[in-house]
Amino acid sequence: MSTLVQPILLSDSEIEQLKKEVGRDTLMGKAIAKSIKDVEAFMKLPLEVPGHGEAGGYEHNRHKQNYTYMNLAGRMFLITGDDRYAKFVRDLLAMYADLYLTFDFHVQKNTNPTGRLFHQILNEHVWLMFTSLAYSCVAATMSEEERQNVVDRLFNPMLDMFTVKYGHDFDRIHNHGVWAVAAVGICGLAVNRREFLEKSVFGLENNGTGGFLAQITQLFAPSGYYIEGPYYHRYAIRPLCVFAEVLHRHMPELDIFNYKDGVIGNTVEAMLATAYPNGQFPALNDASRTMSINDAGVQVAVSQYAKHYGINDNLLGMAKIQDSVWVHGCGLELSQAFEKATDVGLPFWPSVELNEGPNGDRGAQGFMRVQDKNKDVFQLVMNYGQHGMGHGNFDTLGISYFNRGKEVLREYGFGRWVNVEPKFGGRYLDENKTYARQTIAHNAVTVDETCQNYFDVERADSVHGLPHFFAADNEQIVGMSAFANEHYDGVQQQRSVFMFKHDDLEAPLLIDLFRLTGEGEHQYDYSHQFDGQVIRTNFEYQAHKELNVLSEELGYRHLWNVAQGEANETALVSWLQEDSYYTWLGTSSNDNGEVIFTRTGANDPSFNLRSEQSFILRSKGEDTLFASVLETHGYFNEEFEQSVSARGSVKNIQVVGHNAQASVVEIETETSRFTLMVSNDPQVTKDTTNNAEIAGKNYSWVGCFAIEQETL
Amino acid sequence: MSTLVQPILLSDSEIEQLKKEVGRDTLMGKAIAKSIKDVEAFMKLPLEVPGHGEAGGYEHNRHKQNYTYMNLAGRMFLITGDDRYAKFVRDLLAMYADLYLTFDFHVQKNTNPTGRLFHQILNEHVWLMFTSLAYSCVAATMSEEERQNVVDRLFNPMLDMFTVKYGHDFDRIHNHGVWAVAAVGICGLAVNRREFLEKSVFGLENNGTGGFLAQITQLFAPSGYYIEGPYYHRYAIRPLCVFAEVLHRHMPELDIFNYKDGVIGNTVEAMLATAYPNGQFPALNDASRTMSINDAGVQVAVSQYAKHYGINDNLLGMAKIQDSVWVHGCGLELSQAFEKATDVGLPFWPSVELNEGPNGDRGAQGFMRVQDKNKDVFQLVMNYGQHGMGHGNFDTLGISYFNRGKEVLREYGFGRWVNVEPKFGGRYLDENKTYARQTIAHNAVTVDETCQNYFDVERADSVHGLPHFFAADNEQIVGMSAFANEHYDGVQQQRSVFMFKHDDLEAPLLIDLFRLTGEGEHQYDYSHQFDGQVIRTNFEYQAHKELNVLSEELGYRHLWNVAQGEANETALVSWLQEDSYYTWLGTSSNDNGEVIFTRTGANDPSFNLRSEQSFILRSKGEDTLFASVLETHGYFNEEFEQSVSARGSVKNIQVVGHNAQASVVEIETETSRFTLMVSNDPQVTKDTTNNAEIAGKNYSWVGCFAIEQETL
Repeated sequence: MSTLVQPILLSDSEIEQLKKEVGRDTLMGKAIAKSIKDVEAFMKLPLEVPGHGEAGGYEHNRHKQNYTYMNLAGRMFLITGDDRYAKFVRDLLAMYADLYLTFDFHVQKNTNPTGRLFHQILNEHVWLMFTSLAYSCVAATMSEEERQNVVDRLFNPMLDMFTVKYGHDFDRIHNHGVWAVAAVGICGLAVNRREFLEKSVFGLENNGTGGFLAQITQLFAPSGYYIEGPYYHRYAIRPLCVFAEVLHRHMPELDIFNYKDGVIGNTVEAMLATAYPNGQFPALNDASRTMSINDAGVQVAVSQYAKHYGINDNLLGMAKIQDSVWVHGCGLELSQAFEKATDVGLPFWPSVELNEGPNGDRGAQGFMRVQDKNKDVFQLVMNYGQHGMGHGNFDTLGISYFNRGKEVLREYGFGRWVNVEPKFGGRYLDENKTYARQTIAHNAVTVDETCQNYFDVERADSVHGLPHFFAADNEQIVGMSAFANEHYDGVQQQRSVFMFKHDDLEAPLLIDLFRLTGEGEHQYDYSHQFDGQVIRTNFEYQAHKELNVLSEELGYRHLWNVAQGEANETALVSWLQEDSYYTWLGTSSNDNGEVIFTRTGANDPSFNLRSEQSFILRSKGEDTLFASVLETHGYFNEEFEQSVSARGSVKNIQVVGHNAQASVVEIETETSRFTLMVSNDPQVTKDTTNNAEIAGKNYSWVGCFAIEQETL
Repeated sequence: MSTLVQPILLSDSEIEQLKKEVGRDTLMGKAIAKSIKDVEAFMKLPLEVPGHGEAGGYEHNRHKQNYTYMNLAGRMFLITGDDRYAKFVRDLLAMYADLYLTFDFHVQKNTNPTGRLFHQILNEHVWLMFTSLAYSCVAATMSEEERQNVVDRLFNPMLDMFTVKYGHDFDRIHNHGVWAVAAVGICGLAVNRREFLEKSVFGLENNGTGGFLAQITQLFAPSGYYIEGPYYHRYAIRPLCVFAEVLHRHMPELDIFNYKDGVIGNTVEAMLATAYPNGQFPALNDASRTMSINDAGVQVAVSQYAKHYGINDNLLGMAKIQDSVWVHGCGLELSQAFEKATDVGLPFWPSVELNEGPNGDRGAQGFMRVQDKNKDVFQLVMNYGQHGMGHGNFDTLGISYFNRGKEVLREYGFGRWVNVEPKFGGRYLDENKTYARQTIAHNAVTVDETCQNYFDVERADSVHGLPHFFAADNEQIVGMSAFANEHYDGVQQQRSVFMFKHDDLEAPLLIDLFRLTGEGEHQYDYSHQFDGQVIRTNFEYQAHKELNVLSEELGYRHLWNVAQGEANETALVSWLQEDSYYTWLGTSSNDNGEVIFTRTGANDPSFNLRSEQSFILRSKGEDTLFASVLETHGYFNEEFEQSVSARGSVKNIQVVGHNAQASVVEIETETSRFTLMVSNDPQVTKDTTNNAEIAGKNYSWVGCFAIEQETL
């Protein structure tokens, strides 16, 4: 017999269990109901296997829909026993078998090799993985002749294409490679050619340089962080988890879920721990702004983690956001746990520092979380890792900040309208380079109007951030700090960020100290990307009568200079974002401050950029310390005409001084003066006793930082 | 005994019924649970009766919260029997009684008379109405002495203030007047001084010039449309309905719900019929953008309508959006009906033309609705009514358009940050006059860069739109049309708008014909306020390297001229708003078209305006016909990287010709050419036989308009 006729991913007893969930108001019941609804809607359309088309165009989408719904229909056949679902898969596969070899390869338009269905074989890998799984669900309903037809004219040619014609790409350690090995391995099982499973696991040469085991060994830092960055982490997580599950069942001797100290679970956990409390992923390092744990791949990952690594409250919280599970035995386990649980809240992942690089010594990404009195999670993210294999931004020490259900200090995300065909075929836009990946687009400091690492990939790949401290175990104040000493020639950077809780304050306060030292005088632009309506400032500014670009430099040329004013004292900028007020107070150790309000959209002839706002505190000097607080306060509901606490409690922030030993700043509310002392010593630990003379006064404390209160 | 000790609005049997709803998962059960939760949270705070403060400031809000939660607590006491709720009302009332007369009157800052608690007595009326109701719920738990204290030192002084000191304002026919009579009448009942109820119903002079009956006789057009416009309609609906319910119970001889042919029900229906399908109210005529049927007053209105005028599917649909009911016998009836109903969908109110003016002869507001194949409601709103008693915009023939859950051709709404104290105390901003109420801010045509009626209130009040036709009974095409012949000197305007359904099109097509005739050559700016990302155009344009205001004229001076280009052929502008694509094709009968992209924010030194986009088709000529279509198509989901049908089906629209008899335009899709013929005769009816010679060809049809298809 030419093929296995057993479903690759589901046992008979799992199918029996899943059948019982049909019509139930459980996560699994809802997932099955949604699958049926979606498949039924698609099955109403005539079957169609289109020819070549544009990326993101009609044909592309149709092939994508075809594999998506075949993948669902295969399982829905098993779960419902309704042969219409099997027939849909059989008939569509037969059409593909008839046509596949009649399609020539696409004309190559970039560096990606092309397939017969898609403009790049990556998509054809995806097609193959899902279609092989679907085939394995319905193969038992096909005649030997029908199966042979599909295998000979569709699956075998694809297997050959991926491992021979494109064999040189098959072993590449890369998100595309993960899809390649998963697709080929799963198809090999489906067509009963186990040699392809072997190649997929151990590499074409079987020498450890390629294949799934090499991929999962080399793609992750010890922390589980994905070396290509979070956007590709999400993209790779689905084949990673699906193929792991396949290997768990068909190559149990690998003990895949314990392989390399449980690298699969480790990386899933690392991915989940990056998510904002509402389930959205921060758009770290050139990623999309709108990805969330609702992604089907992440659903697979959460369900699989639950099954193989154990269930906890945060996983249940994520399942609550997803309101669904993977339609699989793994998902069933999570669904059942969710059914038993009471009072599932939103996830509150612990703060975590995810190191980067194969040995975990190339910087890190810091994710810090605290809860306010209402259990709302405040999340602060700082990037002090590496560039990431050609992907990603060129800078480090950027932050983003999230609370009350929204990103407050915002990541622009990549410059791309994914799959929107009239927008350059949905591909990366020029503006991704000229704006979105420039330092001025991030919540960081731009020195002399130049991107960090001068937009040089090689240079960027050669450096990384240096973790300074990450202290998340204090109830009142948590903080993380890092250095970036090689990202600008002759300028060293240190950023130390804190979240501080106090009874004087309605909500945790974000405190930010950004220190720059080195040779000569520079212009420093300390930028803050925000959204909403400016409510008030405490300084005079000029709203420009005509708008010009901020400068002709990269990044800057896309920013309209909307308004600007001198702010030698502490500058206050307050704005309303949705239902919350935010008040920022910032200053620097120089006395030449200027605040500039900007809006994106300049030099954007095709309206490729979103129109977004920032304000920049500009300061010129040699060694400089920027210090700011961002207070979250009040409530606004326009519909119900409610507004409370439109002004914050913090009255001032001042730099007392800074040197190689320490930085000291003072923050005033109506009733208190807080003194924050931060060590600038790279060697500081939580046990260090610090004695620093700052502005003629002695400050001493134990640990990386300390805060003291004086009642006014 | 000095006071009634019975609840004014609830009978014992109603209370018994409501008690049974506690803890149930019904609309009423949920409403009670939410009331309890909110009251409990507020009762945790120390009682406080603050002194004078700013509008929208802390003190203002605290008084507002005090009456809001006393009003809820009174009923929660009756429903739960928990004396803590009664005690909260008793104690807080006693504090007010102690302090009230020690407060002086606020210093008057505008034309509104001031109270002792609030900067305008309007708010003090609101305070009194809710507090009187609360008092009536708990009076039976108070000693005679306690009651007398509250009556003597709080309620009686207020009654005197409103009917003596401010007696000259009491009979004013106005939304403030509705609150005044409701407050005084209800308080009169609460303190057992029925003479105040009489004054409130029949006016101080008892001669029909004031009081509730005069208000409800004079405040509405025959259609039920509120003469002060929709913003104030919503504001007045709560005292209107609450007081009507009081009179139903305490002055049954009025038969208030049948008074004047059921004017109460009529006006509630008129208000609800304006709402967009998601429950939001269009920001007609200088209103807020964010009001919806979730407003507590509208909840009262929907519940009361259900009780006294009968329940239908649309009312149930609205209750579904509200997810709540009025905690009252009326709301109980709606809740019970909702419980019995199955498969409640979103409301689909019939198309309706609401006439304006006391006799219904001062123009109208048109609300037209169709459903697409997926039952999504497309709603088109056109204003061709009057200015509205000093409130409202100066122009007519503006439209707004809503589908797929969002406003597509958008109303800016008023220029005001309600209750946001740092934004000019939450009051109307200068920009309300200089931008938001200018014609260029609306989806209309601005002639020679001037607002309609030249921003002259008297002039605006003296004119109104002239209804032409309103034909909503055709399955394929619906249309409405109106003239505005006196809004510009020497220029007559006619706008005819249609929604057209056809198998060639995924969704109903908006077709718009805007005709201008008169003396001499003018510049016509046909403007479209939209939101989202421009995806493509079909013409060359210049994205400006530096931004300047569109002109120095009012309205225009707030618009940045972002990009512009000649568009002598039909111009295409396509954009993405959230998950849908929109493609607009527009042209005019002149050959000098220019499209200008704008963004608000110029000359806005305090960031008072939201940053919003428009595009303007500018054309110069004598008699001119603008014609456009707006196609809704496709789907985009960035998170799931899905994009389908990013380009629409309509290929072109062309003006064949227009004259005093008719306008004829042609619209082309891939496969069809549609010819739309519209009568321009003010006297046309649905039975008129039209014969028009346009561009040398004879067109004939029966009725106000017709559309014909030619297959290509």
